[in-house]
Amino acid sequence: MLIKRVLQNANIATSLPTGDYHAPFQYFPLHDIVIEGAYIKAVLPHQPASAYNCETEDLQGALITAGLIDCHTHLIFAGNRAHEWERRQQGIPYSQIAKEGGGINQTVKATRQASMEELASLAQPRLQRLIQEGVTTIECKTGYGLNLEDERKQLLVADQLAQHYPIEIIKTLLSAHTIPSEFKNNPDGYVDLICQKIIPTLWQEKAFSAIDIFCETVGFSIAQSTKILQTAKALGIPIKGHTEQLSNLGGSALIASFNGLSVDHIEYLDEQGIQAIKQSNTTAVLLPFAYYFLREKQCPPIDLLRQYQVPIAISTDFNPGTAPFTSIHWAMNMACVQFGLTIEEAWAGVTWNAAKALGLTHSHGCIAPGYLADLLVWDAERPVDIIYEVGSNPLVQRIFRGKNTL
Amino acid sequence: MLIKRVLQNANIATSLPTGDYHAPFQYFPLHDIVIEGAYIKAVLPHQPASAYNCETEDLQGALITAGLIDCHTHLIFAGNRAHEWERRQQGIPYSQIAKEGGGINQTVKATRQASMEELASLAQPRLQRLIQEGVTTIECKTGYGLNLEDERKQLLVADQLAQHYPIEIIKTLLSAHTIPSEFKNNPDGYVDLICQKIIPTLWQEKAFSAIDIFCETVGFSIAQSTKILQTAKALGIPIKGHTEQLSNLGGSALIASFNGLSVDHIEYLDEQGIQAIKQSNTTAVLLPFAYYFLREKQCPPIDLLRQYQVPIAISTDFNPGTAPFTSIHWAMNMACVQFGLTIEEAWAGVTWNAAKALGLTHSHGCIAPGYLADLLVWDAERPVDIIYEVGSNPLVQRIFRGKNTL
Ligand SMILES: [Zn+2]
Ligand SMILES: [Zn+2]
Repeated sequence: MLIKRVLQNANIATSLPTGDYHAPFQYFPLHDIVIEGAYIKAVLPHQPASAYNCETEDLQGALITAGLIDCHTHLIFAGNRAHEWERRQQGIPYSQIAKEGGGINQTVKATRQASMEELASLAQPRLQRLIQEGVTTIECKTGYGLNLEDERKQLLVADQLAQHYPIEIIKTLLSAHTIPSEFKNNPDGYVDLICQKIIPTLWQEKAFSAIDIFCETVGFSIAQSTKILQTAKALGIPIKGHTEQLSNLGGSALIASFNGLSVDHIEYLDEQGIQAIKQSNTTAVLLPFAYYFLREKQCPPIDLLRQYQVPIAISTDFNPGTAPFTSIHWAMNMACVQFGLTIEEAWAGVTWNAAKALGLTHSHGCIAPGYLADLLVWDAERPVDIIYEVGSNPLVQRIFRGKNTL
Repeated sequence: MLIKRVLQNANIATSLPTGDYHAPFQYFPLHDIVIEGAYIKAVLPHQPASAYNCETEDLQGALITAGLIDCHTHLIFAGNRAHEWERRQQGIPYSQIAKEGGGINQTVKATRQASMEELASLAQPRLQRLIQEGVTTIECKTGYGLNLEDERKQLLVADQLAQHYPIEIIKTLLSAHTIPSEFKNNPDGYVDLICQKIIPTLWQEKAFSAIDIFCETVGFSIAQSTKILQTAKALGIPIKGHTEQLSNLGGSALIASFNGLSVDHIEYLDEQGIQAIKQSNTTAVLLPFAYYFLREKQCPPIDLLRQYQVPIAISTDFNPGTAPFTSIHWAMNMACVQFGLTIEEAWAGVTWNAAKALGLTHSHGCIAPGYLADLLVWDAERPVDIIYEVGSNPLVQRIFRGKNTL
């Protein structure tokens, strides 16, 4: 029989599955949440405990939100690029560092050499920090293996981590992250390897649930990206993209033409691109850490995204080179400070809209009957308190699939 | 008898008390540190344990640095301005918020109403977070009391905190922070109160060790500041200033003319101002959180500060309105990312140069014989590792006055 429990007198702050764009967050003071097994059964105005035939818990007006969803990360890798940063701060250009074997190639090399155990033990403290902040669902991309075996290795490590920690891991295949050194003089050969071998093999193994591409002048061209996306489409694989981070290449519109789930970064997205993603119901994912760490000047087009009512998500983009920070609270703060998001937009960005970016709005991202009981209880009055004094982390209860995990 | 202990095989990274500007950090691999009581007795190349007639501890090559010094904070206050931020992010201007009783006046009101116990319990978790990051000396300013009794109350709370936590608290009198509402129509009357009553009374009580002023168009004018500084000088009180944050008023040169310890913020400092502080041997204190949170565009003049070899310190400026973040590691990261400091400059900025900003270079801020044994042992290879993946906080031993406190 399913375990039933009731959280009473919760001060609920959540998006609603109706998805009203102009009210990204709603408040339900002193409500009761009925949980059955891993799911929310009902959300009701406060009733006396005697009305429920099960264990009840009085939250005494504590704030409760849905579990946080970090919808874009590169969590699993080996190597350390801190020393590279030290040299960049001394004025040594990235091109010089890349020439010396640094940059993403350094991470690829170290990740290929690492065992599954090594990769898992490196990822663990990072995952734990996100769990402690209230992340209950995290997306993890491949993209540091860049061949069948090592991409698979990254995905298997993700499975291993999901077995040991109270968190759901959504796996995305990002083989089209960069051209590996062995294909330096034959990039199209690598695109063929992705399309003919890596995607079909790992998809058949049910090893991932979406694919992603890095569509950029320094990444994969529109033509190469199109080929990969066509392969994915033919297999019915959901699609995401790293687009318009450094230039306006048209990657977002390309993703939209494949009805992609999300376009991520998008500092250089223009109105035409926004119209395209609006039409395909694609989510715009903002990555404020990369913007911060690379000292970008061009902001994502927030006002236009609002005008076209495009859903906006926020993620850490945790990765070893351009976003080495495992704090979704800081990412939310930076989205507000750097991009001018409102506090409610920031919260919707790591709950409901992040679920949208992962195609999970049937089950994740809000507090409503039928949704997963991934819930956070905070020693705070309002959602803003959690991302104002960042680091205070007033999380007092973390409920994952109906069970306490803090 | 003084307790003697030896840390062996430490990988030392420190400034040297000689203060060579061009080598802000030096490395001494596999050295031994001899501690006697609260002080460092000797720093030597590795010797066999038998050479020491006391307890020895093998650090096996772990990185060791001096304790961190947060040289500019507004730690003690009551009230919460998160909701104000929420409204600012909705586009409501600060002037409107201030008119409604928000802004600094809200903090002053709440701080005046709070008891010492309330103020201490609000400050405790913030202080603990800084302690956990390795801060061993922290400066705390008054400035939310703005009358004799409430300014004294803030100073007494600082004393109370210092008794309960393994940290040294340096107290600064910042009565010239803002004009309290009761003097709104008589600002010079408030300056008189500061000069005739607050400063002399609290100085006689030995309640603080330096004074500070907020010299800005929206703060105290050059004429008002001069009057306060003359009062301080006559009593032999060391001087600091919040200067050139929002405009180039000449506050830094004024502080320099009084041989001030530091000028803080200084985004708008020009070459003339730099020449002035260079001549007076005044430290430039950068406050990257306020720059970040206020979304400033004007960077402090880093290249000119380097050219004139002005010592650069970094601090959190922790305060309820413009820098609500208690992480000195993040402040260091932001100083590098936003202002382009090198990693060594960032480390010197929270150790040796921060000691300089507080007038403590005879005893604080470096690992050398005769200096206080405030030492941090890190599970890291190089200082950059601690401020690259911020939040990982690899602090494994925190030694305060010779004793382990973690
Ligand atoms: Zn990414
Ligand atoms: Zn300040």
